[in-house]
Amino acid sequence: MRQTLYVINPNSSEAVTAGIDAAMAPLRQPDGPRIQCVTLADGPPGVQSQHDVDRAALSVQRFAQEHLGDAAGFVTACFSDPGLHMLREMKGSLSFGISECAALTAMTLGQRFGVIAILQGSIGRHWRTWGAMGIAQRVAGEVAIGRTVAELSDHAATLAGMVDAGRRLRDEHGANVLVMGCAGMAPFRAPLQDATGLPVVEPTQAAVSMALGRIQLGW
Amino acid sequence: MRQTLYVINPNSSEAVTAGIDAAMAPLRQPDGPRIQCVTLADGPPGVQSQHDVDRAALSVQRFAQEHLGDAAGFVTACFSDPGLHMLREMKGSLSFGISECAALTAMTLGQRFGVIAILQGSIGRHWRTWGAMGIAQRVAGEVAIGRTVAELSDHAATLAGMVDAGRRLRDEHGANVLVMGCAGMAPFRAPLQDATGLPVVEPTQAAVSMALGRIQLGW
Amino acid sequence: MRQTLYVINPNSSEAVTAGIDAAMAPLRQPDGPRIQCVTLADGPPGVQSQHDVDRAALSVQRFAQEHLGDAAGFVTACFSDPGLHMLREMKGSLSFGISECAALTAMTLGQRFGVIAILQGSIGRHWRTWGAMGIAQRVAGEVAIGRTVAELSDHAATLAGMVDAGRRLRDEHGANVLVMGCAGMAPFRAPLQDATGLPVVEPTQAAVSMALGRIQLGW
Amino acid sequence: MRQTLYVINPNSSEAVTAGIDAAMAPLRQPDGPRIQCVTLADGPPGVQSQHDVDRAALSVQRFAQEHLGDAAGFVTACFSDPGLHMLREMKGSLSFGISECAALTAMTLGQRFGVIAILQGSIGRHWRTWGAMGIAQRVAGEVAIGRTVAELSDHAATLAGMVDAGRRLRDEHGANVLVMGCAGMAPFRAPLQDATGLPVVEPTQAAVSMALGRIQLGW
Amino acid sequence: MRQTLYVINPNSSEAVTAGIDAAMAPLRQPDGPRIQCVTLADGPPGVQSQHDVDRAALSVQRFAQEHLGDAAGFVTACFSDPGLHMLREMKGSLSFGISECAALTAMTLGQRFGVIAILQGSIGRHWRTWGAMGIAQRVAGEVAIGRTVAELSDHAATLAGMVDAGRRLRDEHGANVLVMGCAGMAPFRAPLQDATGLPVVEPTQAAVSMALGRIQLGW
Amino acid sequence: MRQTLYVINPNSSEAVTAGIDAAMAPLRQPDGPRIQCVTLADGPPGVQSQHDVDRAALSVQRFAQEHLGDAAGFVTACFSDPGLHMLREMKGSLSFGISECAALTAMTLGQRFGVIAILQGSIGRHWRTWGAMGIAQRVAGEVAIGRTVAELSDHAATLAGMVDAGRRLRDEHGANVLVMGCAGMAPFRAPLQDATGLPVVEPTQAAVSMALGRIQLGW
Repeated sequence: MRQTLYVINPNSSEAVTAGIDAAMAPLRQPDGPRIQCVTLADGPPGVQSQHDVDRAALSVQRFAQEHLGDAAGFVTACFSDPGLHMLREMKGSLSFGISECAALTAMTLGQRFGVIAILQGSIGRHWRTWGAMGIAQRVAGEVAIGRTVAELSDHAATLAGMVDAGRRLRDEHGANVLVMGCAGMAPFRAPLQDATGLPVVEPTQAAVSMALGRIQLGW
Repeated sequence: MRQTLYVINPNSSEAVTAGIDAAMAPLRQPDGPRIQCVTLADGPPGVQSQHDVDRAALSVQRFAQEHLGDAAGFVTACFSDPGLHMLREMKGSLSFGISECAALTAMTLGQRFGVIAILQGSIGRHWRTWGAMGIAQRVAGEVAIGRTVAELSDHAATLAGMVDAGRRLRDEHGANVLVMGCAGMAPFRAPLQDATGLPVVEPTQAAVSMALGRIQLGW
Repeated sequence: MRQTLYVINPNSSEAVTAGIDAAMAPLRQPDGPRIQCVTLADGPPGVQSQHDVDRAALSVQRFAQEHLGDAAGFVTACFSDPGLHMLREMKGSLSFGISECAALTAMTLGQRFGVIAILQGSIGRHWRTWGAMGIAQRVAGEVAIGRTVAELSDHAATLAGMVDAGRRLRDEHGANVLVMGCAGMAPFRAPLQDATGLPVVEPTQAAVSMALGRIQLGW
Repeated sequence: MRQTLYVINPNSSEAVTAGIDAAMAPLRQPDGPRIQCVTLADGPPGVQSQHDVDRAALSVQRFAQEHLGDAAGFVTACFSDPGLHMLREMKGSLSFGISECAALTAMTLGQRFGVIAILQGSIGRHWRTWGAMGIAQRVAGEVAIGRTVAELSDHAATLAGMVDAGRRLRDEHGANVLVMGCAGMAPFRAPLQDATGLPVVEPTQAAVSMALGRIQLGW
Repeated sequence: MRQTLYVINPNSSEAVTAGIDAAMAPLRQPDGPRIQCVTLADGPPGVQSQHDVDRAALSVQRFAQEHLGDAAGFVTACFSDPGLHMLREMKGSLSFGISECAALTAMTLGQRFGVIAILQGSIGRHWRTWGAMGIAQRVAGEVAIGRTVAELSDHAATLAGMVDAGRRLRDEHGANVLVMGCAGMAPFRAPLQDATGLPVVEPTQAAVSMALGRIQLGW
Repeated sequence: MRQTLYVINPNSSEAVTAGIDAAMAPLRQPDGPRIQCVTLADGPPGVQSQHDVDRAALSVQRFAQEHLGDAAGFVTACFSDPGLHMLREMKGSLSFGISECAALTAMTLGQRFGVIAILQGSIGRHWRTWGAMGIAQRVAGEVAIGRTVAELSDHAATLAGMVDAGRRLRDEHGANVLVMGCAGMAPFRAPLQDATGLPVVEPTQAAVSMALGRIQLGW
């Protein structure tokens, strides 16, 4: 029986998982699937490099394989969507990636989206994703705040960096909607929206909300 | 208080609205918004030409304006999405178009989608939409079944036409997911999927499922 | 007998129509079609929102329908080209849109064109048009001068804003040709060209000049 | 004084030039510029290879340099537009290419244009042009009739080949407008249009009609 | 000291590696780096699914990490380029992927390349690669021969399938250069070229030849 | 017998040829083809305009025709690749262009490349090339240093200009790899790389290294 939507944090940080879990509150419904956020203990502390992404992919796949029996679906809660296309090959699995769903959601909120990346070095990887999705024309640009996953714990400085990046994306790159290029930052969504005057997409919420609808449809 | 998701059939056919309404069954939940499918009495019998689309757009906008008070959101249930961008300008409104959401959903089910159009003459209009969405690279092609909205009532012939079109899109155009380019054809989804071996997107269900998630998020 | 090329200003401002009419001087020829610039009394004061565009579209269509008998062709003289694709469906009608023809003309004058928009809020709509036309790759960028249609009557300030926008498009966005994203501003073309050193396209003149050639050909 | 629009046939075939000249009839006006079609005696018999194109380019440039004094503008009447970008560098010159203008004109007549090429070997060169113009998304496809410039003199066989190619472009490639990929074939335009039911663009007429408008504007 | 270019066959088939090794003959030079073709014993028998790709990626990365000391560079000799972007992150490593280099090489041999895939199910994955590379416009299409890696050992049937696919790509899709979408098939290159009249790219040779040049440059 | 790879400097500057020749040192091998850098005495002093490019094209073609007998291949060592597509038509000739190969090489070193142009006026021409190659999506931008070919002889000022341009491309345009848009500047590659922290492609070396591999393969 399909009953749980697994939201998989592929890094090993329980704090990130807790942040994701809190962000699920508006999406939990008595008659919907259970939404369970899990930490992959064997994941890297943060997914920063391509090596991290590819290692995490196999952990995500293993987790999904083990939980296929009671899974309503899987969301890969890392902006590099490790393992997404592997999950899509598994029969009987619904799978969604947070960068993919963030982009698709942004495309309903504005014409050109700007992405706030955490690290400069991830931007090339993201562009490969936008290219693979065939949507590069909708990307106004990416700006990195230049903080490691560890440094993100200084919330005030992180938010300030995101606001700066958001304003640059709006004013220099012509973005009219923003995407937060990281999981676990839902509390910054509203202040970032207020500070920039643009709609802001939190990617895990975007992916889970799309997943819930598709679970209902059974597609 | 926001409480109803209006699914607006912009043509005047009650039969089409009834079909759409039946397709909403899996998406209705006790604790979700009410999903109400409405017929625009002043709409054309079928939306076939650009003139039909543009006339319908204003009817859709009028309806939305009048129901903004109790609306959780609006879905324009016609594959030309009449009025969608007008609705998006209205403050306090969430709006989704079925061709847009069908495409975005197909992009999570395959790499290149094929569209089964009803009439040859609509295909150019659809390509304008895929271009405006910046996703033309993901479109394998479009094939029309060549039946007027009226002729669609012969279900067996219509399904046969859709299966033929779906197979051409798969074999000649390289589609690995199909989109039904019309509202009100949900019953054909499963047989079309079986006959072609490809996932099939029914656009109104796709749009409503995305709308429900976003209503929960309040974005 | 086809004898008049109607240039339809879809807003209700007679002043704008008068400006358009004056710009037609170099295009009027004794043996060419009559060029008549008309104001749609039922149009909005200025076309600024998508709602304005879609309302104007039906007015434009009605006007064209009524004048089809003696029309050599129609030009929709508003940078959002309201009703253009409806007109193209009408048998016996030649129709041209000013944003479309401005872009096509710019593509013969430079490799990457920059658009000077009036309002920030129109830029997303314009990008949908460039996308639908499949020419987004040729667009260097858009910069808005941030003035309402009403404020445009302060000519000195408007021109200064256009020069600033044009220089930003040239220096930051890499444009080597400029498009004025508004009807009725023909007098600014030459000074803008002088101030930026780039060729500048006035969209209504661009569209009418293309229309005249096609009327001669009878295509 | 600017008074002649030169339509330059870069091959040495007087017959081709005569055909082009006849096609100018509807575009000649008492108060417009003189339209003079010229043959470049030092051109190749037909422009078929890239070598032909590049050789022709310098002849075209030389001709234009010599006639700059009395030229209202130049049209390069060969579907490979030899020398077009050289002419554009010449101060005081207006220049138009027939493949470029054919494509831009087709973009106002349909959403996806199909090109009827003469030789298979030219198609790659044409795709480079559509790519350089940034409009590849609008090209439905190209089909060659496989006849040398010399064989084109069998008019019945040539027309039959063009009709076949046009129908393939319509039915297999999804074109809804056709472009004749050769100069000097204006008489085939109407029968091709009748046989395929699609609008057909004759490139030299398209280019000259655009040139005339721009000459009037003085841009 | 950098001295060996490792060509990594990520599947466990020694026969495939032997085929790749034989194809290296023309690229081996006394004064160039040693070219060593290796089989990853822990790889899947054939790389067919995304799961195979992602599993192979980590094996490839491990191998490269262990051999970084004496490596002049690495080539991932599987058409899905497992691990390529991980290798590119490793300091002191030069890495090339065979699908990437096959595409880049094809772009110097023709304007639109067609890909002969082994399995239908890989085509979507390939399109993600062409999209990520930003070159989808250059891809005429893909046709699969529909044989598993195991069935490829029937050489006559495999070649016949490739010739059929190549002709379809040429005649229906408009390809003017072909790419073999698999490693280890170098002996088919010449007969495929003869049978289709188009240049054919063998991907491992293409990648190794590019790698050798870059090793010389030290970039 | 094929024995010499000709690197053709299409301008008449022996100093440029000498610089190119020096840059070939790492690519010369005892058992490889002879690499001979030649100056076209009848070329323009520098290739700056489209007229220069098109004139140079014929000189390049003539040279290649005369040396086809002993040529292993040809490289057009000017960033506008004069004559490249003519050379590709010659039977028995392998030809590579330096802008084409620079771009293809950059695509293996980063996701979005920035081009340092010499003159502002060349940028539009370069964009036509990127468009024709179908890779515009990979181009982050171009910035010109604004020096004539003559002024390039002040090395310190030229390098300073290139560093400034490289940093703008990195910081404002988002480039993560740079291409030097000129032949004969190999000595600046390393310092530019150091100053910007990005990999830098020297186009003639890139082209010759690709050519050498292809000569070995005999494709």
